[in-house]
Amino acid sequence: MTFKFNVLIDRAAILACALALSLSQSPLSASAAEQAGAKVSDFRLENGLQLVVIPDHRAPVVTHMIWYKVGAADETPGKSGLAHFLEHLMFKGTAKNPAGRFSTVVARIGGQENAFTSNDYTGYFQRVPTEQLKTVMEFEADRMTGLVLTDAIVLPERDVILEERNQRMENNPRARLGEQMDAALFLNHPYGKPIIGWRHEMEGLTRDDAIDFYRRFYGPNDAVVVIAGDIEPEAALKLTQETYGKIKRQDAIAPRKRPQEPPQVSPRSLTLADPRVEQPAVQRNYLVPSFATGKAANLPGQSESLEVLGHILGTGSNSRMYRHLVVDKRVAVVAGAYYDSSALDMARFGFYASPGTGVTLAQLEAEADAVIAQVIDKGVTSEELERAKSRMIADAIYAQDNQATMARWYGSALMTGATVDDVKKWPSRIRAVTAQQVQDAAREWLDKKRSVTGYLIKDTSPAPAQPASAQPVNAEKRT
Amino acid sequence: MTFKFNVLIDRAAILACALALSLSQSPLSASAAEQAGAKVSDFRLENGLQLVVIPDHRAPVVTHMIWYKVGAADETPGKSGLAHFLEHLMFKGTAKNPAGRFSTVVARIGGQENAFTSNDYTGYFQRVPTEQLKTVMEFEADRMTGLVLTDAIVLPERDVILEERNQRMENNPRARLGEQMDAALFLNHPYGKPIIGWRHEMEGLTRDDAIDFYRRFYGPNDAVVVIAGDIEPEAALKLTQETYGKIKRQDAIAPRKRPQEPPQVSPRSLTLADPRVEQPAVQRNYLVPSFATGKAANLPGQSESLEVLGHILGTGSNSRMYRHLVVDKRVAVVAGAYYDSSALDMARFGFYASPGTGVTLAQLEAEADAVIAQVIDKGVTSEELERAKSRMIADAIYAQDNQATMARWYGSALMTGATVDDVKKWPSRIRAVTAQQVQDAAREWLDKKRSVTGYLIKDTSPAPAQPASAQPVNAEKRT
Repeated sequence: MTFKFNVLIDRAAILACALALSLSQSPLSASAAEQAGAKVSDFRLENGLQLVVIPDHRAPVVTHMIWYKVGAADETPGKSGLAHFLEHLMFKGTAKNPAGRFSTVVARIGGQENAFTSNDYTGYFQRVPTEQLKTVMEFEADRMTGLVLTDAIVLPERDVILEERNQRMENNPRARLGEQMDAALFLNHPYGKPIIGWRHEMEGLTRDDAIDFYRRFYGPNDAVVVIAGDIEPEAALKLTQETYGKIKRQDAIAPRKRPQEPPQVSPRSLTLADPRVEQPAVQRNYLVPSFATGKAANLPGQSESLEVLGHILGTGSNSRMYRHLVVDKRVAVVAGAYYDSSALDMARFGFYASPGTGVTLAQLEAEADAVIAQVIDKGVTSEELERAKSRMIADAIYAQDNQATMARWYGSALMTGATVDDVKKWPSRIRAVTAQQVQDAAREWLDKKRSVTGYLIKDTSPAPAQPASAQPVNAEKRT
Repeated sequence: MTFKFNVLIDRAAILACALALSLSQSPLSASAAEQAGAKVSDFRLENGLQLVVIPDHRAPVVTHMIWYKVGAADETPGKSGLAHFLEHLMFKGTAKNPAGRFSTVVARIGGQENAFTSNDYTGYFQRVPTEQLKTVMEFEADRMTGLVLTDAIVLPERDVILEERNQRMENNPRARLGEQMDAALFLNHPYGKPIIGWRHEMEGLTRDDAIDFYRRFYGPNDAVVVIAGDIEPEAALKLTQETYGKIKRQDAIAPRKRPQEPPQVSPRSLTLADPRVEQPAVQRNYLVPSFATGKAANLPGQSESLEVLGHILGTGSNSRMYRHLVVDKRVAVVAGAYYDSSALDMARFGFYASPGTGVTLAQLEAEADAVIAQVIDKGVTSEELERAKSRMIADAIYAQDNQATMARWYGSALMTGATVDDVKKWPSRIRAVTAQQVQDAAREWLDKKRSVTGYLIKDTSPAPAQPASAQPVNAEKRT
């Protein structure tokens, strides 16, 4: 059996790796576009399936990804965790290919596979020798509509996702903090629910829930195939037509519409005390535009300005947060900021910091607020603007050395309201950001009324050691 | 045209009239049961409609109420305000009775009418001379399934509810605070949405939304008719059979299931600054069991203990909050606490206080916390326990002098998981509460992890005078 690693896109991870995230989320640079982006091909099959081909001839391998326009934010209320549960169940076989065969074949040919679920999309990928591409496409096309589920398959897998929740959330104070902050940030939008699901709802997920959700959202007209690697566009198109092209359009699939946010008028805060906290932290998330909502509102440069602002404020040891809090004032041991523009609906802009010895979270927060106030009042210098933009674009160039990263940029962009052209133009969009725009974005969006501040502290109360939410699944049911 | 007064059950009102609410929500006393409660009759028609008859022969009038088991918590996500909107639209006529005729007839016969929407139910009532009862029952039965709506009717009424939102919410800082606190208290349950709806969603409500919702929830098997007044049970049953009895059972109506809350682990707080605030306030709501959830969890005495606790803590000038904050410490000018057990899902227990001159909200909150800590640590005295129970039962006796109040007790109880028998036994349930139970309830449920604390302050920033959420509807569209 292959080891299957399900990646759950989780903003809590941001806290731990703001820099890494910034790399992985930034689309192509201009020079990258000359190298590869300009050669990206974009097709649409008659059944509605979109195909993106990214040539990369350095090695005789391809990364094949299929992305479905469905994520946790599309779940029926009361069924949180269903999108991610279905992602797991997609490995359970079809009438043609019983459970395990697909993974076994990928392993036998020396391939890798993976799957992931976010608020806005669900994706599956394999990296295989080019000559095996058609094989994995056939498997993937087969399970787009042919999934077979029984209670005997579904119920043990439910224990797996419950255990995954234990590991990712209940046993991770920072993830718990992020979960609580999301619930408080979104007053109405389903982004407030955890992607992994609320435990009590996960426990009630059934085979019928999974099959209904699958039929509602999985189909060629809701999917994008991204193929990056050693293949010509026309050859990739031919393979796609021979595999996915045979699947009928699913007319029941409708565009996604989620409940939107009311105006945000009250600064919120919350405190999570957890006995496992070794490093307290203060974190704040602001509700801000994503690339998609900025585009829909006809506000060009909005999300790009926030991207640059995020970099200047909080990426790396030259950032304002780091310099002010860690180097100059010595009130923090860790500090940074983040923004991810890729969301179909509103996005989050945030900062976090962990205090040095003897520093309270209130002191630390006041210093972070001072950093933000300074950007709002005085703006940013042209030097730091240019440095940020150059660094962001350079990072993107380095990052695209990874074939899977390239495929992921395009896939996630296409899932969240952007086009291939939007991705190609990312470097020029970033280059166009002015210092005034950065300051305006800070003034407009870093308004505490639009935010939640979270405090993570060590719970030193004697008992119970486990918080109420951290009930492990029965040991005998663990898989 | 009759003046139609739509009552929207809104917890924000609690802040202004905790005592009145405590009266109006307490069911019958034991002696009341001897006077009236014992004579309450309970029938069920073949089509599923439930009938409750409460004899009251003091005057030749009856109060006729129909309650539907549908409220704001049953709305489709993205359609907030729909239950209340439909309540308005129910006055817009049927094929048999064009818009206005029902209200005109009620007015002509000297009757009164009213309607109301809560999270858990929607109700309509008329108070008329007994000989006119059949007339209003015929009208009410007619609109249970015969409502006719066109865009010409629906769209102007949408402006009416938008204006109602303006008046009730946007222009009322305490209501705005309550709205924000609900959104923060409920992490997953639709009780977090305002009953009146989020403005941006109300603006999009359509005729089809209203008709779909109506067909999904309005029918005899989802309704309870309560008749209080000068009529014998058998006569009321006969009239009910002759009117509502002719309506076919609606098999599409299923029991309500709402998304439930995850464990609450983080104390939350929020601040609402509004230029119209004259009296700042601190308010806290805890998520606690309702009568229904206590019953479902087989925890007898749970909600009764909270009722007594609410009375001891915060009802009247002898309550602990009032004595400590207003009389002894002189830090508050207003202080109280409240609990309403009638909710199909979890309920709220809360307190509020407004500071005296020169007192900060933080100081005031600390004193309120001290009051709560003392109840948790030391419990309540047998004297105050007995005084509270006697007063609660006596209040209920006086309150039942109002025929409509009686009808409302039974109706709201039956809508929120209680039975006629539960209502009848309320006095003995309250009498059975012990001091230990009150202390245990305080310790168990008044845990800040389960709470939101709201701070209401005056917004003294120069502009804009109107908060972003308070956009008036077009003046020319006001009705």
